[in-house]
Amino acid sequence: MKKSSFKAGMDLWRTPEKVVLVTSINEQGKPQVISVGWNMRVSFDPPMFAIAVGNSRYMYKCINFSKEFVISVPGTDLADAVIGCGEPGQGEEDRFKKYGLKTKQGDYCKSPLIENCIANFECLVKDHVKSGDHTIFVGKVMNTWVNEKPLPNLLMIGDEPGYDVLAEAGLYKIGVVKREIPS
Amino acid sequence: MKKSSFKAGMDLWRTPEKVVLVTSINEQGKPQVISVGWNMRVSFDPPMFAIAVGNSRYMYKCINFSKEFVISVPGTDLADAVIGCGEPGQGEEDRFKKYGLKTKQGDYCKSPLIENCIANFECLVKDHVKSGDHTIFVGKVMNTWVNEKPLPNLLMIGDEPGYDVLAEAGLYKIGVVKREIPS
Repeated sequence: MKKSSFKAGMDLWRTPEKVVLVTSINEQGKPQVISVGWNMRVSFDPPMFAIAVGNSRYMYKCINFSKEFVISVPGTDLADAVIGCGEPGQGEEDRFKKYGLKTKQGDYCKSPLIENCIANFECLVKDHVKSGDHTIFVGKVMNTWVNEKPLPNLLMIGDEPGYDVLAEAGLYKIGVVKREIPS
Repeated sequence: MKKSSFKAGMDLWRTPEKVVLVTSINEQGKPQVISVGWNMRVSFDPPMFAIAVGNSRYMYKCINFSKEFVISVPGTDLADAVIGCGEPGQGEEDRFKKYGLKTKQGDYCKSPLIENCIANFECLVKDHVKSGDHTIFVGKVMNTWVNEKPLPNLLMIGDEPGYDVLAEAGLYKIGVVKREIPS
């Protein structure tokens, strides 16, 4: 055990990371979507999630304004969408259209569900806390929606074996655990 | 897309979850350790982590008192320790000894490093926020330590193929992504 850089420590367990899409709305009510790798459950009862969003991201402004978000869990057919929605933007582009994300209105949030994701969780923001260059938004799950024909969920992965890579851009690789062993 | 229970939604993407050990100290300075599946990065610069700890757990009291914790990333030789340290306790048992976790003093925290983990991150608590039945502790990484001979890190896994199960108890399975394809 020796002291090291933070990066050297993270390189040992950075992946896999369950990546999700997060939708919200801006002040004009226009839906927005980004990819979020830093997400976790934070309560069994009531069910709650936390997500960490960069303070400089347009989505930070949206959630800070709307006090709501939807966690949409993408399946294997949306790997390119996850890569695309991970890029910084200022909310002008219609990423739902660009990446074939079909929206649907939920019950509690103005933020849209994504109908072709495998699951959607409507969340109302109950608290938030700054954490360095990100902000943690804590959301209470008001409603859960599932796809009748769910695909495997996507992971942010590394270079280690055991995964199928479905999309990549720069340092980012999106994929799934290999489920079938080729003969 | 249809409305469902929260559980049905989670069943579609509950796993894999990168599980870690977290150490802290109680008011008497005695080291404690638990397994934590709900953990995530929450800042690039400075590097920070968030962990969610059950409000009824003894570890909640410890971190709330000490304002520090160490994230210790277990490798494949510590699957039983992860299962054992996931069980509720009141801090009386010496789990370090019971599960062969070798402690070492870090620079910033009284909470011990675990020398036979693959990486350790000394964290000082900068903020915390309640989230239902858990509390999110936000820690700034002060120091990183890595093992010179790191093993693959452990995952909380499900029943889907593609993983090697290394330990299990009840509903909990700990394992790794299969890295070698048998011929």
